[in-house]
Amino acid sequence: MTAHLLTIGDEILIGQIVDTNSSWMSRQLNLQGIQVTGKSSVGDTRAAIIDGIKNAAAKADIIIMTGGLGPTKDDITKKTLAEFFDSDMQFHQEVFDLIAAYFTKVGRKMPESIRDQATLPSKATILHNKVGTASGMWFDQENKVYISLPGVPFEMEYLMQREVLPRIKDKFPGNPIVHRTLLTAGEGESAIAQRLDVFEDTLPEHIKLAYLPSLGQVRLRLSGFGDATVAGRTEAELQEQLDQLKQTLLNLLPDLVYGQEEESLPKVIGNILLAQGKQFGTAESCTGGYVSHLITSIPGSSRYFPGTVVTYAYELKTKLLGVRPETLLKEGAVSEATVREMAEGALDTLGVDVALAISGIAGPDGGLPDKPVGTVWIAVADRHRTIAEKHIFGRDRLKNIQLTGIYGLNLVRRFLLGMV
Amino acid sequence: MTAHLLTIGDEILIGQIVDTNSSWMSRQLNLQGIQVTGKSSVGDTRAAIIDGIKNAAAKADIIIMTGGLGPTKDDITKKTLAEFFDSDMQFHQEVFDLIAAYFTKVGRKMPESIRDQATLPSKATILHNKVGTASGMWFDQENKVYISLPGVPFEMEYLMQREVLPRIKDKFPGNPIVHRTLLTAGEGESAIAQRLDVFEDTLPEHIKLAYLPSLGQVRLRLSGFGDATVAGRTEAELQEQLDQLKQTLLNLLPDLVYGQEEESLPKVIGNILLAQGKQFGTAESCTGGYVSHLITSIPGSSRYFPGTVVTYAYELKTKLLGVRPETLLKEGAVSEATVREMAEGALDTLGVDVALAISGIAGPDGGLPDKPVGTVWIAVADRHRTIAEKHIFGRDRLKNIQLTGIYGLNLVRRFLLGMV
Repeated sequence: MTAHLLTIGDEILIGQIVDTNSSWMSRQLNLQGIQVTGKSSVGDTRAAIIDGIKNAAAKADIIIMTGGLGPTKDDITKKTLAEFFDSDMQFHQEVFDLIAAYFTKVGRKMPESIRDQATLPSKATILHNKVGTASGMWFDQENKVYISLPGVPFEMEYLMQREVLPRIKDKFPGNPIVHRTLLTAGEGESAIAQRLDVFEDTLPEHIKLAYLPSLGQVRLRLSGFGDATVAGRTEAELQEQLDQLKQTLLNLLPDLVYGQEEESLPKVIGNILLAQGKQFGTAESCTGGYVSHLITSIPGSSRYFPGTVVTYAYELKTKLLGVRPETLLKEGAVSEATVREMAEGALDTLGVDVALAISGIAGPDGGLPDKPVGTVWIAVADRHRTIAEKHIFGRDRLKNIQLTGIYGLNLVRRFLLGMV
Repeated sequence: MTAHLLTIGDEILIGQIVDTNSSWMSRQLNLQGIQVTGKSSVGDTRAAIIDGIKNAAAKADIIIMTGGLGPTKDDITKKTLAEFFDSDMQFHQEVFDLIAAYFTKVGRKMPESIRDQATLPSKATILHNKVGTASGMWFDQENKVYISLPGVPFEMEYLMQREVLPRIKDKFPGNPIVHRTLLTAGEGESAIAQRLDVFEDTLPEHIKLAYLPSLGQVRLRLSGFGDATVAGRTEAELQEQLDQLKQTLLNLLPDLVYGQEEESLPKVIGNILLAQGKQFGTAESCTGGYVSHLITSIPGSSRYFPGTVVTYAYELKTKLLGVRPETLLKEGAVSEATVREMAEGALDTLGVDVALAISGIAGPDGGLPDKPVGTVWIAVADRHRTIAEKHIFGRDRLKNIQLTGIYGLNLVRRFLLGMV
């Protein structure tokens, strides 16, 4: 069973927003064994929308459209859908009541234009939206399904989970696709590929390995494509094959793999801290609170993370972390000596068992002859020892901050596990 | 002149990565007056790639492909391009030397598989990549241009800026498209649309207004579509028309607009702080350093931002910010009294003129009968006064953190400008 995702809206084509919906939808569809074979984006014109739908329908069984359903005037999707499915438009009192209830709930006055939102093509099965004002629509035509959803991510997610995925499951019980993902940090795609050369050659036809690089990390994804009618390729057999291959990968790359599937470095570190019963905190200069933000993005992080000090200014490094003024004067803020004192000072200031300290030159300016932009010192300390390492990243400020976050957290992980 | 963007790779279709390239490329092409009329994504198979190229070529003059050029085995783009353009493959010594130089520069050993990276279709004009190992390729065929670029964002950006955009400018001097964007916070799309109803009705045919909502914000984008041969629609005339319309919008929404174009709330606040010669800091609980991260993402923020304390734990609120234990005991951490004491305490702890304090329940757990998940108190203080406001957001942790960041920064902006 295949799906095609079609995003509608000039805002995508003009590049003013990044399409995060498609990747979320793809993952959800994959979990139901539905393969997304294509995605496309078209602008807010009748001709482009109709062309987009026709192209999508030529390639897939399920066509999911997002966007083009808001209350403002740049939205013509609904009318075009009515035309495409040869349907008239119909006012739905129950949809209007739902929208009115939504406005009451969020405590805002309902604008006049909202009435249009309750007028929908009569051939559509309406997917009721309780978290916004644009209804989803479901059309059946010639063994294919066409679904239209609002583009606001949490409204789309609500409708997918509550209305779309259960209906798709009923209508299309498909062939299984099974994935296993391992998360690595510390090596590039080519180097990993070289270590996995023999492994890849032994993979059966129906199992693929993909390398998904991102800043400072590479995800390794094994995908098995099943067929319920073929021996050795049922879902249960696939699951078992992939579990074995995953274990083989773990044995081949013990130094690089930090987690699996939907885990993240902050989550992995949180679990280690909970298991070890330790409190952790950060003292950040060039990352400006980014590492703290990563850690506290994890629900329940208050159990192991009391807090952070961000000390951009020299004076705060001394006042809040006890870094000696002579260290700053002699070695500079971006130095092994300073970052060690920051980490050790943070243990007391924050009252934690383990602390991460970071000081660097994020850029784009501020480099020195012996310390170019991108130079970062990272230290991890507990009551017994402090380790420090230096990195030289690039010239892009945000990338430097993010890379430092990943390398810093990976150093904490290895410190906690006794690997450094 | 039109362009179509084609991303190649299962990693996009399976949803394991979000496509940020397309939006960046669209913006760059738009700045050159090239309209992106469509985007699509296909998987890593010969048939899908060929089908994708044919569809794209049927709709646009410039076809830009990204992805499918890495050194690992899931990449077949290059061979398929050679087939599509009826070209043989050719080893390029100068490309190989460039890749070798790249590995030397980043200090890594060159894997064997890299040799393949220097073998390219002979009909391609090679776009030399000095920041990675995959070359870009440029094919001319029947008045259309086909460009293939690596999918790693900074490699793609490097090649676009250095190789692709200058060549496109030479080859296709096109009609102008001009944009103006205003950034608003504090009202939803429908409410703004209602206030702009009359304004929209007076817009000429060739100028469009779009609403681009995102978390807590709405961007308003005016787009003018020019034609160098039509009076009133030359680029200079468009620029003037849009400037006037932008001013009208500013007059219609003085309370909502915080900035323009590529500005951001942290940038706008930074500029106000610099103009007023003030130092600013944050004391964060539920946002966990996110606001600090936003502020310090701006280059040069160290001039007005000495630092932050993140006080997740009660004890740190008292120790680092001087919040009285009896306040925490009587009112709780998420209360007007606590957040006011945090803001006032931060003035001294961080040595700043203005401080933002935040305390809330980010969720998904931790709600109380009188304080549901999503309850957030925000305060801003200087030496003369402290103001505080309460918000009740939703149940999603990350969304609550991000919304709190936007509302918090917007309160700081209005505080600095004397609007509250």
